[in-house]
Amino acid sequence: MTQEPLPARLPLTDRTRHRRLREQGSLERADLEAILDAGFVCHLGVLVDGRPLVVPTVYGRDERWLYLHGSVASRSLAGETPVCVTVTHVDGLVLARSVFEHGVNYRSAMIHGTARKVTDPEEKLEGLRRLTEHSAPGQWSYARRPSRKELAATTLLALCLEEASVKIRTGAPDDGDGPDAALGLWAGVLPLTTVWGTPEPDPALPAGTAVPDHIARRAGTRHG
Amino acid sequence: MTQEPLPARLPLTDRTRHRRLREQGSLERADLEAILDAGFVCHLGVLVDGRPLVVPTVYGRDERWLYLHGSVASRSLAGETPVCVTVTHVDGLVLARSVFEHGVNYRSAMIHGTARKVTDPEEKLEGLRRLTEHSAPGQWSYARRPSRKELAATTLLALCLEEASVKIRTGAPDDGDGPDAALGLWAGVLPLTTVWGTPEPDPALPAGTAVPDHIARRAGTRHG
Repeated sequence: MTQEPLPARLPLTDRTRHRRLREQGSLERADLEAILDAGFVCHLGVLVDGRPLVVPTVYGRDERWLYLHGSVASRSLAGETPVCVTVTHVDGLVLARSVFEHGVNYRSAMIHGTARKVTDPEEKLEGLRRLTEHSAPGQWSYARRPSRKELAATTLLALCLEEASVKIRTGAPDDGDGPDAALGLWAGVLPLTTVWGTPEPDPALPAGTAVPDHIARRAGTRHG
Repeated sequence: MTQEPLPARLPLTDRTRHRRLREQGSLERADLEAILDAGFVCHLGVLVDGRPLVVPTVYGRDERWLYLHGSVASRSLAGETPVCVTVTHVDGLVLARSVFEHGVNYRSAMIHGTARKVTDPEEKLEGLRRLTEHSAPGQWSYARRPSRKELAATTLLALCLEEASVKIRTGAPDDGDGPDAALGLWAGVLPLTTVWGTPEPDPALPAGTAVPDHIARRAGTRHG
């Protein structure tokens, strides 16, 4: 099925219009995609008995769809369900002169829509490939792929990347040119960085099983 | 107001009962508190026009209450509102022999309840102190505290730490003793670690403004 590509600019809707000043809202699809590509765990919000439930889960994507591992939420997903998926990277603490101006440097994407369960076996396999390669590049070729039975036992959700809200805050605190600057206090950012560590072999492995290069080479690299 | 302390064991409810095997559910309040204390950004799920909205925000806590910065969600919080707050730490990728057994090592706490806006000025100030000290220990004494006007302009939410669900996954993949072990593939965990970096001074600071010790000493320490 051929579809029009999604527009490079994100749509302004009641849900995606930004209401606060401090953070920078972005309407660039490229920013949405960069935030999604920098992580692999999202927070999926669904309704259960009329109340919100927020569950962490893994995801992958293509140009149009976000694919989510949906087992945790599956009991609440009968048919098409309104969801909100949020991916957040925390880049640092913003330490201002005043408590009021304290904040967080972050990149966050919020996707609104209706999730569908993926039932077509071909799309499901491709979605799972995207999801696997998103968090663990190279593993789809290296590990044993899902059997028919495993595929059936997996709940995969798809959410269109159409309606999304992106917020990014970077840089110094906002009270550097206000009256609080005269307080003489230190102000700035305390950055947070996430890195991949050294692969830890399963104790059940036979001694000498080599770490494949696609895993080994991530050690020490930045994540997020 | 004196209240009974919350029980050391978390209650089993329809919402907190664990349904999946791979993760370990914990009913220990100490695990809940450790997960909350290891982070400072949560994902707050609320309902807006009958749909879920998941927003990242900062939090702090005391023995009974989780305090949340609620500005983003405030438009949807008229009176008491059902919410779900989730805090997740991602500790590593679980790389199994089969794609199906791939997963994530993580610690996650999900708190269910009804959020209230904090209106009592004394509780609000104390809640903000907890919230500030939670992410930036030492800043409540160092930075300028909120004025009456700033306090009024801040939305602080409180959520009782009564009903919560804790899930923790640690260790190696689960297919080390199954038929896939014979495939001879490497399997294990690729750990993720988050660390505080070197403080970045606000460019607006006068040259030579010293970084206070309570900030400087966090550089290089682990977060999460």
